Amino acid sequence: MNLAAVFGKEIRRVRQEAGLSQEELAYRAGIHRTYISQLERGLKAPSLEVVFRICAALGQEPHELIKRVNQKLELPPTSHD
Amino acid sequence: MNLAAVFGKEIRRVRQEAGLSQEELAYRAGIHRTYISQLERGLKAPSLEVVFRICAALGQEPHELIKRVNQKLELPPTSHD
Repeated sequence: MNLAAVFGKEIRRVRQEAGLSQEELAYRAGIHRTYISQLERGLKAPSLEVVFRICAALGQEPHELIKRVNQKLELPPTSHD
Repeated sequence: MNLAAVFGKEIRRVRQEAGLSQEELAYRAGIHRTYISQLERGLKAPSLEVVFRICAALGQEPHELIKRVNQKLELPPTSHD
């Protein structure tokens, strides 16, 4: 998976764990819901600004999310990828 | 300072500590030198992809750079800002 896809999966996971809908995350982050959906599906690559906004909305430290994304990028692909 | 400005100052600092010119960093990261210059001056906001590429070129862990950027963003402005 590329960076956008890994990032998208990670924010979807954190959002769902937080019990938020895409609409709620979008509202909190000041980003359009359609864009959240595109990010989660890896169809759009985020700017650093958007990463920080989404992290703030999810109560995540940006560097912790980035660390997990980088770890998942570096993993060898599984047969499901 | 905004995010782009803090990020730009941080990569300039790390680049200079590594003894690299903007040209050398640009070549290593596969980014145009003009864009490196604009990033360092906070004139352009980076994508997450560019953050990862520049970190790889500088031998930095992305999450460590992001942590420092976030810490500097959260500091109260000094009289020099």
